[in-house]
Amino acid sequence: MLVNRQILLKSRPEGAPNANHFELVQRDLPTIIGGQMLRRTLWLSVDPYMRARMSTAKSYLPPANVGEPMPGGTVSQVVASNDPSFAAGDIVLGYDGWQEYAVGDGKGLRKIDPSKAPLSWHLGILGMPGLTAYVGLLDIGQPKAGETVVISSAAGAVGSIAGQIAKLHGCRVIGIAGTVDKCAYVMGDLGFDDCINYREEDLDSALKKACPKGIDVYFDNVGGAVLDAVLKRINTHARIPLVGLIAEYNDEKPRPGPNLNPILTNRATMRGMIIIDHWDRYPPFLRDMAQWIAADQIHYREDVVEGLENAPRAFLGLFEGDNFGKRVVKVGDPK
Amino acid sequence: MLVNRQILLKSRPEGAPNANHFELVQRDLPTIIGGQMLRRTLWLSVDPYMRARMSTAKSYLPPANVGEPMPGGTVSQVVASNDPSFAAGDIVLGYDGWQEYAVGDGKGLRKIDPSKAPLSWHLGILGMPGLTAYVGLLDIGQPKAGETVVISSAAGAVGSIAGQIAKLHGCRVIGIAGTVDKCAYVMGDLGFDDCINYREEDLDSALKKACPKGIDVYFDNVGGAVLDAVLKRINTHARIPLVGLIAEYNDEKPRPGPNLNPILTNRATMRGMIIIDHWDRYPPFLRDMAQWIAADQIHYREDVVEGLENAPRAFLGLFEGDNFGKRVVKVGDPK
Repeated sequence: MLVNRQILLKSRPEGAPNANHFELVQRDLPTIIGGQMLRRTLWLSVDPYMRARMSTAKSYLPPANVGEPMPGGTVSQVVASNDPSFAAGDIVLGYDGWQEYAVGDGKGLRKIDPSKAPLSWHLGILGMPGLTAYVGLLDIGQPKAGETVVISSAAGAVGSIAGQIAKLHGCRVIGIAGTVDKCAYVMGDLGFDDCINYREEDLDSALKKACPKGIDVYFDNVGGAVLDAVLKRINTHARIPLVGLIAEYNDEKPRPGPNLNPILTNRATMRGMIIIDHWDRYPPFLRDMAQWIAADQIHYREDVVEGLENAPRAFLGLFEGDNFGKRVVKVGDPK
Repeated sequence: MLVNRQILLKSRPEGAPNANHFELVQRDLPTIIGGQMLRRTLWLSVDPYMRARMSTAKSYLPPANVGEPMPGGTVSQVVASNDPSFAAGDIVLGYDGWQEYAVGDGKGLRKIDPSKAPLSWHLGILGMPGLTAYVGLLDIGQPKAGETVVISSAAGAVGSIAGQIAKLHGCRVIGIAGTVDKCAYVMGDLGFDDCINYREEDLDSALKKACPKGIDVYFDNVGGAVLDAVLKRINTHARIPLVGLIAEYNDEKPRPGPNLNPILTNRATMRGMIIIDHWDRYPPFLRDMAQWIAADQIHYREDVVEGLENAPRAFLGLFEGDNFGKRVVKVGDPK
């Protein structure tokens, strides 16, 4: 019988995970039954999102089970198969987790042609991280030629690809990374226009210098202080694909201020809205509102303050919530 | 000569404004020249956004000038006019600010029919606040029948209208307001399904109780702790029109955590993105990426860790940034 080495999730971390949250075990492999196959793991992917699966906090994937192998994307080779769609020797992209062998059906597997690219690339540039960069930058970020795009974790799996795609679309691209070597790589090999070392440079002034025209797209992998600094320099109608919050994943409790993790995990859209962009909606608004008021479907209450001299008091009270309905100041009567 | 009473911005506040930041003065009116007209103010609007105009911080409108009347929306009557488009007696919606009279041209003025609605309504339900509610809820929030919509400042000028529009679109609507009376009004007169008094109730548990199916749209007028509490209960693909941040306007310095004021003032879009929603983009992604790689337009770097037993270390290092490129674990070679 084959012995399978597995790395189990041993316990759930509070705050940063460490080696004690994992356990290496040896277990006998079950035999394959029905339409199952036996697969041998060749490559496995480690990605920051896996931190969420170690926890029971609500997220977009169920938590990993304590006592079972850590889940994760894998490239494997079929050893034996009862499934006619797969033959021994086939290379497949799957989600077998942190173990040397896996027994299972063919659900969710994708066959890989080993002649086309290095096998491990299907866990990176040709796989989930590459697709994340592509969709996050192009579909969510919608960069236009000439715009300024900032990418955090610029030397990482996703950021390095997102930034290069932005360059291919004619953008000025600024990376943010954590070492001198990474910044050299980002500017040299990857062709970004500039790269800020967030561990050694003052982020506010470095961003100001690197982005003289402000920031149109911020592809965010990290959240936290870097997001805060970038937001200070965004342009009108900027787009911010929130793709990761690695700086916050290990927080023992949510950081103060509106915590943005639910925006990421729920794939929510937060959009700032100021009425000056929307005057074209006045005619349909007036038409609808007149109908709703006439039909007694919408009610309105005013909070009238009399006299120009009371305008400051009327205004200041808004911040105490002492108005009840729309506050207006009556200055005079028509003649 | 007519004497004009004006309320000037006397100085700029740090933190909360108070009466000393304003000054009531009497000034002689200039005579009208060229195509100008003289207007007498009947109503003026006070709105939270005016706090931003008292400051020099970057925003979507230029700062008000110290020593000049506070700017703001007005309903006025034309007293005398050299502009053939306007006659004495006409009622106009404009932006004359906090003063009893104004001299100026007709730019940006809109004539109002006084027989259609109370004049002051053009500063509220039929004006900027009403349009803000309409566009923010319908265009940005995109509520669908049966969804749960939460509205902060629910008794206020904008929130009260946004919530009623949501009810008209078949949503379950929960208001958040600051007094028992306001909540009674929001549920009684305005027909919201529920209302939370954020000053007396525990927001987390009250939201959980009022929104058993989670929150699909949060129309936010306030930011801060209320936004934080609501985010904890948003549903997948929630929409958050960020329309005001009144809880934060008087902060002396930006609160910690990514500060969202730039999202509002720049009308930016922040969108959480997880790749599980986007598998349909795999084919065009693979086609594009294969081309870019073949043309040497995109470069890729891997950080290979050997051996299943090293997977935990490989993973844990991601949070230290000790990987350089996409980290993968090599478990075995194909046969």
